[in-house]
Amino acid sequence: MPKIRILTESDLRNVIDLDRDAIKCVEDAFDALATKDVRMPPILRLDIEDHNGEVDVKTAYVPGLDSFAIKISPGFFDNPKLGLPSVNGMMNLFSSKTGMLEAVLLDNGYLTDVRTAAAGGVAAHHLARKDAKHAAIFGAGVQARLQLKALTLVRDITSATIWARDIAKAEACAKKASLELGIPVSATDDGKEAASNADIIVTTTPAREPVLMADWIAPGTHVTAMGSDAEHKNEVDPALIGRADLYVCDSQAQTSILGELHHALAAGIVAPDAAFPELGQIIAKSATGRTSAAQITVCDLTGTGVQDTAIATLARQRCDLVAAGVEISS
Amino acid sequence: MPKIRILTESDLRNVIDLDRDAIKCVEDAFDALATKDVRMPPILRLDIEDHNGEVDVKTAYVPGLDSFAIKISPGFFDNPKLGLPSVNGMMNLFSSKTGMLEAVLLDNGYLTDVRTAAAGGVAAHHLARKDAKHAAIFGAGVQARLQLKALTLVRDITSATIWARDIAKAEACAKKASLELGIPVSATDDGKEAASNADIIVTTTPAREPVLMADWIAPGTHVTAMGSDAEHKNEVDPALIGRADLYVCDSQAQTSILGELHHALAAGIVAPDAAFPELGQIIAKSATGRTSAAQITVCDLTGTGVQDTAIATLARQRCDLVAAGVEISS
Repeated sequence: MPKIRILTESDLRNVIDLDRDAIKCVEDAFDALATKDVRMPPILRLDIEDHNGEVDVKTAYVPGLDSFAIKISPGFFDNPKLGLPSVNGMMNLFSSKTGMLEAVLLDNGYLTDVRTAAAGGVAAHHLARKDAKHAAIFGAGVQARLQLKALTLVRDITSATIWARDIAKAEACAKKASLELGIPVSATDDGKEAASNADIIVTTTPAREPVLMADWIAPGTHVTAMGSDAEHKNEVDPALIGRADLYVCDSQAQTSILGELHHALAAGIVAPDAAFPELGQIIAKSATGRTSAAQITVCDLTGTGVQDTAIATLARQRCDLVAAGVEISS
Repeated sequence: MPKIRILTESDLRNVIDLDRDAIKCVEDAFDALATKDVRMPPILRLDIEDHNGEVDVKTAYVPGLDSFAIKISPGFFDNPKLGLPSVNGMMNLFSSKTGMLEAVLLDNGYLTDVRTAAAGGVAAHHLARKDAKHAAIFGAGVQARLQLKALTLVRDITSATIWARDIAKAEACAKKASLELGIPVSATDDGKEAASNADIIVTTTPAREPVLMADWIAPGTHVTAMGSDAEHKNEVDPALIGRADLYVCDSQAQTSILGELHHALAAGIVAPDAAFPELGQIIAKSATGRTSAAQITVCDLTGTGVQDTAIATLARQRCDLVAAGVEISS
């Protein structure tokens, strides 16, 4: 039997960072989703209400990539009481040709963080105005900082604002982001003010009620909503989906159930049979993106198996080069 | 972060065998499925037609068990040309309370073999005549031998016959089984003869057309069909589902899509809204099993996530006791 490589979070952090390579890797994954005969089955979801937990399993086979990932993401929301993180995760990587297990990536969700932020970078790269300079980030967690960093990799972002309900959290996040990125980052608890001054807005919250209202958005703004990955989550006023000049999603099969589109459908703002361009089609130029500087564009991201397969395959290749991790025969 | 135990096939073979404990473990899992608030989402299925491959992901949360397994079973049917096994597999075991990864079970499908054969033992224990003595096994692979072994653990089996299209394979399997179990085991390529003389029949083939016909079955026989786990597989003449006095399944949600029931539904032999007892209900006595020695009983097994969670939890507990495997921090 072939050997199996066991890779820890620190092995993976040594070889993968949120940089232009990661963005390109995720961009290629979306392009493949639009242009190749990708297999991406519906997400497997296990709910463990007894312990306030949920588990998502995502996968995709991408023709041309040597491996496919099966990613397992548990979220157990009472964990902080036990001193453990709520969100966790790992990936198993298998050979696309033989189905043999090649690597176990004990990344504790790190690769998910990178590929999720990279998707935000891809969305802004293809949909935001070229001259976008000021970003507003809704939320003050890990993704808030990473999404802002991803924007700086695709646009000349010169300043940013972090919004959070809790101003202390917004301030802490803004301070860290400013130090890391070398640009002024302010904090606010006024969502309207944050939104109306931004060229690009990214929502990164676990909100169950909209935190971003449709009438706050100025013409020309690009909005990426990436916080919703479950039926009950909703960050963006459904009216914004109606108001936007262009709505794009990572996978309409997913956003119609798990994303912001779900709530616009439920509110009757979008017709049940409406078809929208997917991000991969914009990248592949089989669908039209932004056509004027005054348009409002929205990108709805729920997270896809192709991103996992792409980032895990890249991580494994780089770990192979430096012989990272431990090899096990079984 | 808690440590993660990496367990190899040999670690797992050292602690888990197909014995009465394994049968009890799987019996308890089916009982839980009928009596507890189990969460068992539909199987995630990834098809990779480019490489003649398919991957199933199964899971279940069983209240009262410390852990839940997420099992990944790839089947890549061109692998033998490359000197690799077609069927493979591994399990990830997570804490039911926190969702933290506890163990990676690199079992190469061994635990699946054990829990699958154990389910055959459970089915025969609850559905076959108490005085059943002669078994016929259709198929000559690993499950043929294991299913026969499982029958010997629940009934006083004194002789058996192995049927295969290729008589040489039947003979090789019969010889091995006879040596292992210490009972006479004959080989045949005559399915009718094999079936009509048996008290218990187990079909263990990957057949796409029935190998066991309805009019071959004598009154009083119990039949377990465990080979079909995909839409296109079919071992048993659909007429047998109509002819049987009692049809039982592991999970009707699965057998109506993946099992023998699927083909009986397609043939119009079973009404679309017919409800059948599940094995767990027979165990829990909330449904009635065999009521006379002359009845024909059929049990349709597609393999369930509760079996995986149960056997993986048992294996991990036993590995903990002997400190098997390697611990990794990540």
